Amino acid sequence: MTAPLHEAHPAGPGRTLPDTQQGMRRRNLARVMHTVSAEGPLSRAAVASRIGLTRAAVSTLVDELIRSGLLEELGPERPGRVGRPGSALAVSGHGPAGIGAEIGVDHLAVCAVDLRGAVRSRTVRYGANRGRAAGPVIEELVGLVRRVVGEAESEGLWPAGLAVAVPGLVARDARTVVRAPNLDWNDTDLGALLPSDFPLAVGNEANFGALAELWLGEGTPRDFLHVSAEIGIGAAVVVDGRLLHGTRGFAGELGHVPVRPDGPACACGGRGCLEQYAGEEAVLRAAGLELGEDRVGLLAGRAADGDEDVRRALRDAGEALGIALTGAVNLLDPQGVVLGGALAGLAPWLLPSLREELARRTAGPACPVSVSRLGSEGPLLGAAHSVIRAVLDDPAAVAERA
Amino acid sequence: MTAPLHEAHPAGPGRTLPDTQQGMRRRNLARVMHTVSAEGPLSRAAVASRIGLTRAAVSTLVDELIRSGLLEELGPERPGRVGRPGSALAVSGHGPAGIGAEIGVDHLAVCAVDLRGAVRSRTVRYGANRGRAAGPVIEELVGLVRRVVGEAESEGLWPAGLAVAVPGLVARDARTVVRAPNLDWNDTDLGALLPSDFPLAVGNEANFGALAELWLGEGTPRDFLHVSAEIGIGAAVVVDGRLLHGTRGFAGELGHVPVRPDGPACACGGRGCLEQYAGEEAVLRAAGLELGEDRVGLLAGRAADGDEDVRRALRDAGEALGIALTGAVNLLDPQGVVLGGALAGLAPWLLPSLREELARRTAGPACPVSVSRLGSEGPLLGAAHSVIRAVLDDPAAVAERA
Repeated sequence: MTAPLHEAHPAGPGRTLPDTQQGMRRRNLARVMHTVSAEGPLSRAAVASRIGLTRAAVSTLVDELIRSGLLEELGPERPGRVGRPGSALAVSGHGPAGIGAEIGVDHLAVCAVDLRGAVRSRTVRYGANRGRAAGPVIEELVGLVRRVVGEAESEGLWPAGLAVAVPGLVARDARTVVRAPNLDWNDTDLGALLPSDFPLAVGNEANFGALAELWLGEGTPRDFLHVSAEIGIGAAVVVDGRLLHGTRGFAGELGHVPVRPDGPACACGGRGCLEQYAGEEAVLRAAGLELGEDRVGLLAGRAADGDEDVRRALRDAGEALGIALTGAVNLLDPQGVVLGGALAGLAPWLLPSLREELARRTAGPACPVSVSRLGSEGPLLGAAHSVIRAVLDDPAAVAERA
Repeated sequence: MTAPLHEAHPAGPGRTLPDTQQGMRRRNLARVMHTVSAEGPLSRAAVASRIGLTRAAVSTLVDELIRSGLLEELGPERPGRVGRPGSALAVSGHGPAGIGAEIGVDHLAVCAVDLRGAVRSRTVRYGANRGRAAGPVIEELVGLVRRVVGEAESEGLWPAGLAVAVPGLVARDARTVVRAPNLDWNDTDLGALLPSDFPLAVGNEANFGALAELWLGEGTPRDFLHVSAEIGIGAAVVVDGRLLHGTRGFAGELGHVPVRPDGPACACGGRGCLEQYAGEEAVLRAAGLELGEDRVGLLAGRAADGDEDVRRALRDAGEALGIALTGAVNLLDPQGVVLGGALAGLAPWLLPSLREELARRTAGPACPVSVSRLGSEGPLLGAAHSVIRAVLDDPAAVAERA
């Protein structure tokens, strides 16, 4: 039985901790970690002034975090240097590592990220996973995880948890894939197949992509809709810096928002869903192309070469995205929409019609639409960083496990 | 300048209070109030065991709440009775009152609710407000507020705040009506027109209706979409027991979700918005009726009498609602959808086609749709109870003002 990794449903620092002296200590440990992580290196005095506690209280917390290997002292400042007093604190580069994994339709990837956010190890294996049973795919993935963990350990890191991004709906238990149509996996308990020696979270790739955007993107708002695509279209809703999961964990199914209610039948049972107009398969079909590997590369290449059929297909897809996003923007009133994943690579041809549709359907200024710089790396990085965030959010829990 | 009433953007008990000893005390005062409010009358010992504090700590908190007039002791139990020991505590029926007000297209209403949730005074004035300037409407409303406050004071209550429900978009400052098309009010600062002698919050009527459903409905889930209608169609999104406001405070604009993207032009700039199919005006037009007062009564009466044109118009409106809700359910994955406001009275004729549309467009079990029992009383009660909730959430703030 794997231990749950609470960041599968991320909360703010210590939000769910009990309101006791002990709970307050844990929240303050989290506050120190977040402060040093965001602004370090910092002296103890600087940390104290930023979080509004006494220097003595902060020193006790810092000592505990150093003992747990989560913070480290960079050593005394060189004598004669004016300014920052005392020894500066930084989050450890030799402590816990977040292990992120991604199961794509055409690839598997695993990486290890340290507390400082640096990718310390990374491996990718290409090959179609569509139609393969979960067992052998996960076995292959676990091989990659072991290799990455080994590399991280050889650099003095230890795995604080594993988060796995999958292109499908994941139950709120953060281990069961309820439906992944593009892998043909249904009601599959990945938790039973994955390593049990560290905390585990399985999550939707669009959700992890959105978290990466939130944590690593430049100027990403705290309220946004993140839209990504591989074969399907996924989206994630971020409200006040937190993922909206939905009752069953299925929120963000933008691909099945009806765009033209009498349009073509969709596998979901509906008609005229967004996926029927803007999913990779639909766009390839509309452009008269075959479904193969590197579908985005093919579309982007042809569009860049001026292929009018491909450009028209992408323009129509952008229009359908604009209609579906009009509904989403009306419901959620986000600060912005971010196109990530495969959509980022197609943005030059999708964006004009998408933005036009959104603007002409909304009163007042239209919701800004931007393109992710993380692109297809988002879900993998989001998964690894979700483990790191869990450490920052409750360092005491990690210290207990270490 | 009116003081802000923080429940315009409700938070859980004390969520935003600082994490200090003082903050902990305030949160624990809130916990005592919520516990006695939800489960009282309770002895001090029972409160202590429920919130996990010592009896001594609870006694200190209780004494403070009694001094502030928020709790009262019901007196010693009769001797000889076995069981609940000591004197039982209840929330005060003579303390703060929440004043709720509603500006409807055809009426004004004001009520006072005590900490126990009882409506202690209520007044309604009928008459069209459409096209009237905000000044005279608010002047009339303030007259009703003064009368209700007077009645509440004569019963020993004092106003803890005023919350006003309006049929339009309200900015996050909780005082400015940005757009209320059915009143013809735009960018109107109601805060400047309303009384400044107690805390104030102006909010969207669908939002207050949803809060009423959450707090007063039977078996209402904590994640739901509340859909209501007067002339427009409004909705509110509740996630984990909290309203989703959106960046500008405009979340929940279900009425402008595109249902048929090439459909009739809408005042919002879009085409084929839900309001063009399921708004009262659209339904009356489709049924061949004139727009007048008591539109819902007219439609419900005709439908009950078997008028086929009206029934067909309502069936079509239900279908359009089903299409728009399919998109919303896919995005938000709520536990349920609640039809409130005017829609509740039309539910018998809307629901069959609405449910059918939702079911045939969703894989797996369709999202349950229920009908509010509060109906058109929801927004007024939600407004008044939002003031009461603010008292329960931070009783120390109220005690400071008292």
